[in-house]
Amino acid sequence: MICMNNSELKKLISRQKSNYSLDQEFYVSQHIFDLDIKNIFSKQWVFVGHISRIPNYGDYFLFNIGKESIIIVRDKDDSVHAHYNVCRHRGSHICLENEGNSKVLICPYHAWTYNLDGSLRGARLMDKDFNKNDWHLHKCNSQLFEGLIFINLSEHPNDFEEFIAPTKKFIEFHGLSDAKIANRQYYPTEGNWKLTLDNFHECYHCQPSHPEYCQVHDKDYIIAYGAGSNTGPASEKFDNILTEWNTKVEKMGHLTGEYYETEFNDYSRSAERTPLKEGMFTETKTGKPISKLMGKFKDYDCGYTSVGTSPFNSLLMCNDFATLFTFIPISPLYTQVELMWLVHKDAEEGKDYNLEEMKWMWDVTTIADKRIIEDNQKGVLSKKYVPGPLSQMERGLEKFKSWYLKHLENSLI
Amino acid sequence: MICMNNSELKKLISRQKSNYSLDQEFYVSQHIFDLDIKNIFSKQWVFVGHISRIPNYGDYFLFNIGKESIIIVRDKDDSVHAHYNVCRHRGSHICLENEGNSKVLICPYHAWTYNLDGSLRGARLMDKDFNKNDWHLHKCNSQLFEGLIFINLSEHPNDFEEFIAPTKKFIEFHGLSDAKIANRQYYPTEGNWKLTLDNFHECYHCQPSHPEYCQVHDKDYIIAYGAGSNTGPASEKFDNILTEWNTKVEKMGHLTGEYYETEFNDYSRSAERTPLKEGMFTETKTGKPISKLMGKFKDYDCGYTSVGTSPFNSLLMCNDFATLFTFIPISPLYTQVELMWLVHKDAEEGKDYNLEEMKWMWDVTTIADKRIIEDNQKGVLSKKYVPGPLSQMERGLEKFKSWYLKHLENSLI
Amino acid sequence: MICMNNSELKKLISRQKSNYSLDQEFYVSQHIFDLDIKNIFSKQWVFVGHISRIPNYGDYFLFNIGKESIIIVRDKDDSVHAHYNVCRHRGSHICLENEGNSKVLICPYHAWTYNLDGSLRGARLMDKDFNKNDWHLHKCNSQLFEGLIFINLSEHPNDFEEFIAPTKKFIEFHGLSDAKIANRQYYPTEGNWKLTLDNFHECYHCQPSHPEYCQVHDKDYIIAYGAGSNTGPASEKFDNILTEWNTKVEKMGHLTGEYYETEFNDYSRSAERTPLKEGMFTETKTGKPISKLMGKFKDYDCGYTSVGTSPFNSLLMCNDFATLFTFIPISPLYTQVELMWLVHKDAEEGKDYNLEEMKWMWDVTTIADKRIIEDNQKGVLSKKYVPGPLSQMERGLEKFKSWYLKHLENSLI
Repeated sequence: MICMNNSELKKLISRQKSNYSLDQEFYVSQHIFDLDIKNIFSKQWVFVGHISRIPNYGDYFLFNIGKESIIIVRDKDDSVHAHYNVCRHRGSHICLENEGNSKVLICPYHAWTYNLDGSLRGARLMDKDFNKNDWHLHKCNSQLFEGLIFINLSEHPNDFEEFIAPTKKFIEFHGLSDAKIANRQYYPTEGNWKLTLDNFHECYHCQPSHPEYCQVHDKDYIIAYGAGSNTGPASEKFDNILTEWNTKVEKMGHLTGEYYETEFNDYSRSAERTPLKEGMFTETKTGKPISKLMGKFKDYDCGYTSVGTSPFNSLLMCNDFATLFTFIPISPLYTQVELMWLVHKDAEEGKDYNLEEMKWMWDVTTIADKRIIEDNQKGVLSKKYVPGPLSQMERGLEKFKSWYLKHLENSLI
Repeated sequence: MICMNNSELKKLISRQKSNYSLDQEFYVSQHIFDLDIKNIFSKQWVFVGHISRIPNYGDYFLFNIGKESIIIVRDKDDSVHAHYNVCRHRGSHICLENEGNSKVLICPYHAWTYNLDGSLRGARLMDKDFNKNDWHLHKCNSQLFEGLIFINLSEHPNDFEEFIAPTKKFIEFHGLSDAKIANRQYYPTEGNWKLTLDNFHECYHCQPSHPEYCQVHDKDYIIAYGAGSNTGPASEKFDNILTEWNTKVEKMGHLTGEYYETEFNDYSRSAERTPLKEGMFTETKTGKPISKLMGKFKDYDCGYTSVGTSPFNSLLMCNDFATLFTFIPISPLYTQVELMWLVHKDAEEGKDYNLEEMKWMWDVTTIADKRIIEDNQKGVLSKKYVPGPLSQMERGLEKFKSWYLKHLENSLI
Repeated sequence: MICMNNSELKKLISRQKSNYSLDQEFYVSQHIFDLDIKNIFSKQWVFVGHISRIPNYGDYFLFNIGKESIIIVRDKDDSVHAHYNVCRHRGSHICLENEGNSKVLICPYHAWTYNLDGSLRGARLMDKDFNKNDWHLHKCNSQLFEGLIFINLSEHPNDFEEFIAPTKKFIEFHGLSDAKIANRQYYPTEGNWKLTLDNFHECYHCQPSHPEYCQVHDKDYIIAYGAGSNTGPASEKFDNILTEWNTKVEKMGHLTGEYYETEFNDYSRSAERTPLKEGMFTETKTGKPISKLMGKFKDYDCGYTSVGTSPFNSLLMCNDFATLFTFIPISPLYTQVELMWLVHKDAEEGKDYNLEEMKWMWDVTTIADKRIIEDNQKGVLSKKYVPGPLSQMERGLEKFKSWYLKHLENSLI
């Protein structure tokens, strides 16, 4: 089906069964992908970079999604602007390099010149009725929170404060505003963004596919909490471990607890603090402390903070480093996955931390997931693919799926 | 024209002229290609491999066509199963390598495990109402005949016995069940599958394009029989040669004769035995015997057996080796061509046969045909292409064309 | 919008604002591209090569545009024929090499043989009612003028004499019929053909983007005449320079003056003679004479002749060499640009001219333009692209744009 009208799509949505994967169309159709971008991705606040990537006045980087290129640039007053990389004259890209430094933005075609706030500074030889104030760069909504740069492609974005409120204290505790990027890496994945997120929303596959993850995390944690709280069958054993840990951690004055959406809304946020496997201080092969403590941690509490700000971002944070995920839908069969490892801004590589040890688990696991998702997509393209039943460890996927379908349906009204 | 409705397509079909090539649409349109796959290719029994490729319990190989991947696997009792390579859980490909050995089929994603007969053996942590019997791998129809593995992608395949009956004795005489694969090779061809088959259905191009073929086969044979019996102008000279040879061969107790469809039906089968060029024992440069005699041959009768089981397969068999062709439509402008050379199972390379000498003629000829077909496709894409008149040596092409058009038309009712 | 009907497209055309760039659709849509090819490109006489490329009887070269391949071949009587490279039998390409020599055109598939004038010479084994006269190669309209080979893909081409009349004397003065190709080069450009031509129709970008061009040409010329007469703001200073130069040149008996369309018609032609920067004899880095004087030049008049025969060709000619441009639309986002440098037929490389010095300016400038156009296209693909206001130096672009829109609109009636 090349194109569907709204009533056909509604029927298709209503045919989706609870606790089953989605019909093929959702994972392959260009039409549904276009709606996804317009109605789901473009309405979310998405984390796209950390302030440490642009430490100086004039520093910029590009965030590319499909046909769009966004310039993220730091101004004189340390404010951060986001602009569409499209000259208002004839439409040329203005910044051609993925990152750089420039005190003004000069279009390479005809030298129209913009200030870093996007206002037009100069344009030669224009007619007399030309008014520079009419030709500001197209602004992209952006917010800086705890060093994290969020953008929102919507014309009428949701209020940022409302959006960040429930996960705020979890992020703040880790002191990301005093952090720096230790490493950044892309894992381009030839699969639909929903297959990519499905993979991230369940830990049913962790045991067969991720020996490294299973080596680092407690077996009972993986079953009950592997993809977030209440995403697997209850585990009395892990509940006891968690209760005991909470008591210990509260005595240390550290944060405990969890957040999940209790009713349907525009967001799909979650947060929780849980203990690592016994004996592990941080998420590495040996579990030994690997870098400077971050944020408000006075001592190692050996916990793990998982925060989801939207389906497109996950923040997985230990006491001494953090791994941040960004999932970018590019086309129906292609998703860009970016990982960023953050450490305390004063930590020095080679002295305070060893990068290879720190990135080991999520690097090897994301490489495995890339392959898994690509093989998943291949099978889903078969005429014989039909949705299959989900296991007890795939409740997180079902949650995401029903949020997604409701969102998509609402957008068709 | 991106899309046509049935009545437009029927009009187009009725406009096709007898003894002319087809209109451009048939060679380029995605819409017609999709119908071809659904109504022509998917209804035929197609030879995809020889049993010697999976000699042991658990041996498997994949047969890929477009978005479909089929697992062909040998079970404990030596039976052969064909399954769609799609896990019933979330749809992942199960087998990732083109061939291998496995006593159970384990999905690499969540470790759902299937027996070789496709029945679900294990799935962890499913809900209580989950019934393993409901989640058998999607079966693909398959048949083993004389060591040849045939599959049929239809939900309601034609009866295999009815299908194979007329060509049976020709195939059996060559003892393919006691054969083994000496070589397998792909010739990916950037041309529509019908242009690819057109090329195979006439020998009008043999003289200008295939000096190697013309070196090995008799000139009068090429004219009268190059693309099968009754595909070129009658040759009294070759008729005499054939009559004489038949007499000789019948005395030896070998098979003679031919088969062709006398009325329109679901099949497009043919078979015939003819003599090679005088002095040739087999289809090589020198014509000297090159391997062990196969099947029921007691001595060299210097004959050539051509069998077409469907438009997508041809079996060209000498007394001591056989060359099998599989033509797989992949997309409107792309066809996969696979050649398989079979020898007696006890023949040893280097000792009983020389591979390079054996494959020489069809290898060099298929490479030439690949180029020819690709240049044909380029011209057919021109706005100026119009069907041209067929020669007296292209009767086989006309036969295939009318069978194809009638099939396509019937599918639109 | 995958497809538009005529009334939607008319509305879109009527929404285009004077002195602004075009809406995104015009630079990206497959539908509009197809109309462009049919209604604009295919109706123009397009220069595709110079006779010196096929000096001998039987010499040919191919001109490829999208799915079409045209054979340009020189016959015994030195006439030039253009044929579609499509065999009338089954449609194969006939000539497979980009250039060569052949006294007859033999299809490599079945050896149908054509005379160089396109008439069918031989076809083996055809039915009795087959008439060779019915199967002439599809002719493409072609004209040889002053050594320049023009083709026209229309079924009913405009009269060539009418077409060439206004630019005739400008071209003739340069003696291109006594010239030869010194160099030919492609600059494949990933941008819509209109973005490619927009770039060629204004010199507003010359200052920021083309230091080499600005080094060779007078600043006041660039502003007023950079993209042709009346394409920039008037410059009294350059007007004086031009008047003075005209007087000098007329005394020498050379040609002066200009041509531009004064009312809307099928053509978009222009021509003018202007002086080079003071002290420059020709369009090279040093400005010193670089080759033999061409055509009717008795001595260097230090002028520059710019001729546009259609939007798809520009001829930029100095006294001692000429640079010819051909712009070929290939797909919505891809344009082939070909440059040809011509010198006097008796000039010898290494002795009379140095190729690197001669091609330097337009080679480096066209490489820069390729990048510029590609970055322009990237930004125009953004959802945020909207047409921007044109400067006083982009009047040439506005002229082309309005000619194009009117043509497109007329074709919809």
